[in-house]
Formats: sequence, C-alpha cells, structure tokens
Amino acid sequence: MAANLRIALAGLGTVGTGVIRLLADNGALIASRAGRGIDIVAVSARDRQRDRGIDLAPYAWEDDMTALAARDDVDVVVELVGGSDGPALALARSTLGAGKSLVTANKAMIAHHGLELARLAEDHAARLRYEAAVAGGIPIVKGLGEGAAANRIERIYGILNGTCNYILSEMEDTGRDFAEVLSEAQALGYAEADPTFDVEGVDAAHKLAILASLGFGTRLDFDGVEIDGISRIRAADIAQAGALGYVIRLIGLADCELAGGGGRHLFQRVAPYLVPVSHPLAGVDGPTNAVVAEGNFVGRLLFEGAGAGDGPTASAVVADLVDIARGSAAPAFSLPVEALEASAPVDPGHRRNRAYLRFMVADRPGVLAEITAALRDAGVSIESMIQLGHPDDEENPVLVAMVTHEGPESAVTKALDLLAGSASLAEEPLVMRLLG
Amino acid sequence: MAANLRIALAGLGTVGTGVIRLLADNGALIASRAGRGIDIVAVSARDRQRDRGIDLAPYAWEDDMTALAARDDVDVVVELVGGSDGPALALARSTLGAGKSLVTANKAMIAHHGLELARLAEDHAARLRYEAAVAGGIPIVKGLGEGAAANRIERIYGILNGTCNYILSEMEDTGRDFAEVLSEAQALGYAEADPTFDVEGVDAAHKLAILASLGFGTRLDFDGVEIDGISRIRAADIAQAGALGYVIRLIGLADCELAGGGGRHLFQRVAPYLVPVSHPLAGVDGPTNAVVAEGNFVGRLLFEGAGAGDGPTASAVVADLVDIARGSAAPAFSLPVEALEASAPVDPGHRRNRAYLRFMVADRPGVLAEITAALRDAGVSIESMIQLGHPDDEENPVLVAMVTHEGPESAVTKALDLLAGSASLAEEPLVMRLLG
Repeated sequence: MAANLRIALAGLGTVGTGVIRLLADNGALIASRAGRGIDIVAVSARDRQRDRGIDLAPYAWEDDMTALAARDDVDVVVELVGGSDGPALALARSTLGAGKSLVTANKAMIAHHGLELARLAEDHAARLRYEAAVAGGIPIVKGLGEGAAANRIERIYGILNGTCNYILSEMEDTGRDFAEVLSEAQALGYAEADPTFDVEGVDAAHKLAILASLGFGTRLDFDGVEIDGISRIRAADIAQAGALGYVIRLIGLADCELAGGGGRHLFQRVAPYLVPVSHPLAGVDGPTNAVVAEGNFVGRLLFEGAGAGDGPTASAVVADLVDIARGSAAPAFSLPVEALEASAPVDPGHRRNRAYLRFMVADRPGVLAEITAALRDAGVSIESMIQLGHPDDEENPVLVAMVTHEGPESAVTKALDLLAGSASLAEEPLVMRLLG
Repeated sequence: MAANLRIALAGLGTVGTGVIRLLADNGALIASRAGRGIDIVAVSARDRQRDRGIDLAPYAWEDDMTALAARDDVDVVVELVGGSDGPALALARSTLGAGKSLVTANKAMIAHHGLELARLAEDHAARLRYEAAVAGGIPIVKGLGEGAAANRIERIYGILNGTCNYILSEMEDTGRDFAEVLSEAQALGYAEADPTFDVEGVDAAHKLAILASLGFGTRLDFDGVEIDGISRIRAADIAQAGALGYVIRLIGLADCELAGGGGRHLFQRVAPYLVPVSHPLAGVDGPTNAVVAEGNFVGRLLFEGAGAGDGPTASAVVADLVDIARGSAAPAFSLPVEALEASAPVDPGHRRNRAYLRFMVADRPGVLAEITAALRDAGVSIESMIQLGHPDDEENPVLVAMVTHEGPESAVTKALDLLAGSASLAEEPLVMRLLG
C-alpha cells in the first residue's frame, strides 16, 4: 500500500464535521477502496472553542487557514468555508499554487473562478475536485465528466436547488403561499436566514454554469446564465398548473449549439418551469436534486439524490479524496482548460415554447380585452385561459392565468412590452415556460 | 500528449459497430478528454464478409479472436462477443494474462468469472472494466464503485432488464397478455428470438450479482440469486395491481447484513414486484433501466437511462476506454479481490413484506373457504381480496387475487404448502411482493 493521503480541513461547519465523522465511521472500507488510508492531519475554522461534538485534539490547528496550504505534512486541502472570493479563494490559490490538490464544495467559487483554479492545478500537477459543489451527494460531476465522457452532451437540465424544490413541493402539497412555506423551511433548516441566493435562483445558476462547462466543453460563463427565482409564485399558480397536469419546479437548463462561424452558442437559464406530471422530474419532491444529461450516443441519463445535507455532501467530498488517493488524473472540467471552447450567449427569443402567463388585474370591464388584444398583436396564440374572481370583493385584483400554444419566446416578450405600464395590471405579469 | 491507446475489438455486432461509429464521430472530443487518441488497430468476428455498413479495411483482421490478445500493437482488448464461457472467456484470460487491459460488455462472463478475471488483472497490472455489462449506458459501475465509494452501501435495487420492462409497461398500457406482447417485442428487436434469459430473470440476475459485489464489497455470488421471471404474469394481474395503486416491474434487489459470526448475510432476488405508483421506479417505462443505491452517508441515489441499444452500450464501453487512457487505477470491484468478503445467502423467510397472491381456481362452492383457511392456518392476514368470475362460463377457472398485510415471507410459503396439490387450484399460485 502507498503512504496514506494526508488531508487538511478548512471549515468545520456541518459538512466539515460530517467529513470527520464519515472518515471515522467508514475509514477502513475507504482505505481499502482507495488503496491507502486517508488521514486528517490539520484543521482550521473561525472559532477554535466552539463545541462541534467531535474531538479536534488529534489534529493540528491553524488559526490562519491559508497556512494549511503551506504545511509539509499535507497532500490535499479540503475547502469547506464557502464564499466565491475572500479566504476560500485565497486558500484555493495557495493550495494549488503549492502543488497540493484541492477538494471543495464551494459552487460560488468554482462558478466564478473555476477556470483560473483548473489552470493553476494543471500548471502545478495538482488536482482540483468539486463533486460536492453540484447537487450534493449525487456523483454528477463524475457522471458527466467520466461516465458520459464518450458523448457530445447536447442538453443538461435539472432540479439543482433543494431549498426551492422543498418550498415548491410544500406549496403544492399544502396549498399555502410562498412566504409562509419559506418561514417554515427556515425554521427546519432547509433555507438560510438570508434565502436570496436560493430562492432567486443564484445558487442553481452557479451549479448550472459548472455543469454546462463540464458537459459541453465550453468555458465557464456564469454571467451568461439567465436567472429567475420562485419568490413571485403564488399558491394559485401551483393550483392552476396542477389543474392542467403540471407541477412547478425551479429548473436549470442549458444547451449548446454550433454557431455559424464555428464558435458555440450557449444557452443557460434558471427559472421556474411547468413540468408535466408524467416527466421524471415532476416526481422529485422535497430537498432532492435531479439532473438529466442528453448525450449523442448514450441518450438521456438521469441522476437523482440528496441535494444537500452533511452526510451526502461529505460523501461527495470523500469520493473526491478516494479519487485523488487512487491517482485519478481526469482534468477538472473533463477537458484541459486550453481545450475548453469559448461560447457566446444565445438570444433566447427564437426558442419555441408553450408558456404559462399569469396576470393580476383590476376587476373591471375591458381588462381581458386589453390583454388578449396585446397577445393577438404580438402573435401569441392562447390555448387555454382561466380567470379567478372574487365575487364579494371588487377591490382586490383578480388572477387571470393562461397557457399559450407553442411559439417563439420573443412573441411573449413583445406582448408583455405592449402591456407594460397598463393601469389594468396590478403587478408585473408572471411568465413560466412549459418543460418538454 | 501520451501515445495513443491502441485497442482491438472482438465482436462486430451492433455494439461493436456502434463503438467504431462512436470513435469516428466523437474521436477528437474523446482524445481531448482522454489526454490521448484511442485507435482501433485490429478486429475479429465470426464472419469477415458480412456487410456491417462500415469499412473494416483500416483495421487488421484476426480470424482467431484470441490472437488479438497476443498482438504487440494492442494495449486494450474490447470483448463484445458474449457468452459466459467459451471464446469470450478464453479471450479475457489471454488478454489479462498478457498484461493487457480488458473492456467487456459481457454480464454473464463477469457474473460467473468476474473474481477470477479481476485477480488476473491485479496479478498482471492490467485493468478489467465492464461498465457496459450492467444497465447499458448508465454509468452505474462508476457511480457505485467511485461516486459512492465513501459509503457503506446497504441496499441496491432496480430495473435491470429492458426487455422485461418493455413487456410489462406494454402490457400495462394496452391490457394485452404476456405472449402477445413478447411476440411484438421480438418483432421490434426488444427481445431475443430465445427470450428465456431475459423473461425468466437470468439476465437481471447477472447484473444484480455484479452490483451486489461492487456495492457491498462481497464476493460475487451469482448462484445465491433467487430468480423468478415474468412469464406467468397475466393482463389481469396488472389490472388488479393498477386498481390497488401499483405497477408491476421486474426488480433486482440485494441487501447485505452483518451476520452473527462476523461474516455477511447477502440477500439477492430478481422477481416481479408491485411498485407503488408514487415510487420513482414506477415511472420507468419501456426498455429503460434504473438503479437505486442506498449508502450510509449519501442516502438514496438513483441512476436512470437506456438499458441497452448500440449507442448507449458503446457509450459505456468507450467511457471505460477513456478511463484506461487517463490511467484510472480503481480496482475492478472497487476493492482488491482479496478484500472482498465472503458471504452466506440469507434465508428470506424472516423478511417482512406485503404480498400479492393470485390463484386460478375452479368456480365451485368451498374453494374460497379452502384458500382462506390455509392462509389463516399459516398466520397470513388478508388486507384486500377480489374474485373475477366468468358469469356465463363455469368451465374455466376464475381468478382470485389478494393482498396480504405485512408479515414474514415464511408464512406465505407455509400457506402455499398447505394448498399444494389441492384439486381446487387450476395452476400454481402466483406470488409477488410489494416494494416498500
């Protein structure tokens, strides 16, 4: 057996302590699978005194986490601090720059700085691994970058944020509104105190940008992700979707086409979609994640599992450590950085979809005529429509929901432009596309 | 870049020609991902003259496929011949014995001889890879052996045979009986001319035994798989199951417990199960495969995709080639052969299940009393029961179907023993468990 792999842990929150527990519980099995033991030699976190329910005495302590990268007795640094920049990025740079390998669960850092870090890893013959950064315990980075490596990946989509999926499936099950379910999710620990990154789609966008680069062989382009969240969805939207045979899920979706001049057109969107109840993603409830990848030989692959949590995330972190211990040499993004292609974001206007449109309107004559005229003038054809009034309450706005026939997204955009500023609309219309 | 990986192909059926097409179509991408090109240098098949729609002129031809293993210009042999023994096994032995790596799609050979071949690979510093042998294009071997490598796997189950799944979902959709749908599946190429291995569960059992060894770290034990097929299922069974909220799927299921003396108890079964419509496996239709693995940290992972077909299978074969080109050194069964534990098959009698029992009985007084008395005497409690009679036809047997409350399997076995040989039964009762 080779010498044990010596690791340092930066960050001792639930995932960090989960990694310590996992290596303790499954250590013998992992050593046998990896061909050598995996030893934690040093740790660092903000507060040394905090009671984490585990004994840190066996490990060297560093107050300055960057010092972990400089230790002679460390082969791999595991970064579980979070944040796209700041201490996490400094630690990542020092680690790879010192020729040590880096394992991270930090999706924001990879989405923003993944290429720089991958290049640093290549230059210093180190490994960069981030399985835990995307879809928690699901081995999707390995699945795409190795399992589907023989394919040109044409499309990737899935449920990438467990908090949003929990909230949407709770709203669906209980008929309650967004704000109420969000509060409950916060109380249960499924949502952060500041839920913005989750509910506004930013977290899912980090993961989508990473998957797109990995799958399509394009350069990471987080800024190219079109992002919409779930905070404007009402219980009534979910009820309407349900009546039509759909559930609402926050979907990250990316596809990639050859552009005219030989470059690549990359489409990346995070937004709530109406998913047909018969689609595999419709059955994905609670904080579960699921990713579909379509390859030109393998067809459609689906991966599903826990999207977060200390156990699943620790499982992904340690899978990366086992890979490194076994000597795995796959590039961080499946291709060498120099082989990743540049791409240009594609105008989504020509994409053809059916769409769900919801208007909150004043309950007075002529409003429906105004909306339907705008849709007609923009060339949007209506497949079905429902108006939910308040018979005893003429003060409050009423909900008008409709589903369009398939047509270009630009037509819907034009219709909404025509309606912009209308005194009939009590709030901005909500648009969600139908998946399929 | 390292020197190209030089491969030889044995077997030029649909999968073999699929591999040739895949390497032609995606060759540049694969070379970039693998860090070096993958070149086919030699091929062998039974009939050199057959028109396969591809040009074999660029490749050396060997009449005797075993000669591929002896060629100095070959690094890896890809075995796509099939059959657990015979030429395939001879080729595998010569290849690994010569220190060359072997990639195979041959589930029967791996299920029967996997340990011997893995040991041969270890002894000669060669690689044995068989992603395509289990669940077609789904990267489940990689998912279990690498992606979930940090976990003690506790349970593995899934839909492992696309032919059976196609037949069952067709029966479900059309209400037709087994024989009719099987004929159609044969005409469509979804079932072999001799469908026995598929419909009697043997093919799924090969895959289950492989997954169990890989997941649990136990020695392959194909003979320990309890096998039951789908050929006795009637349209009426599917209708009854549907009325109760279930679909019928052929499931391979394995779990592993520590035995008293420190050994391991391995349970492996392939059988039709009633799957609740809300379960992710219930939505898996047609020739699709899906595998669930439950790990002690990651929780439940699900992998789904095409279970067969030339494109998906070629995708899995070439993923193995990319791994070998990248220098992957993971052991064939995730653990070195000497670390795989012995196990003993466990008596399933103590397993607690709900069960679906179906009797074809003579339509005369007292039959129901006879059956229910036997169930009572064996301690089996009935949750629901239905009898489908033929009001105008007293000659033909009628169907009595019931679902039991949860209880030990041994009680159902005892009840059927009590009824064995009864003149009231027109055929042997059909027992299917409920997945739950």
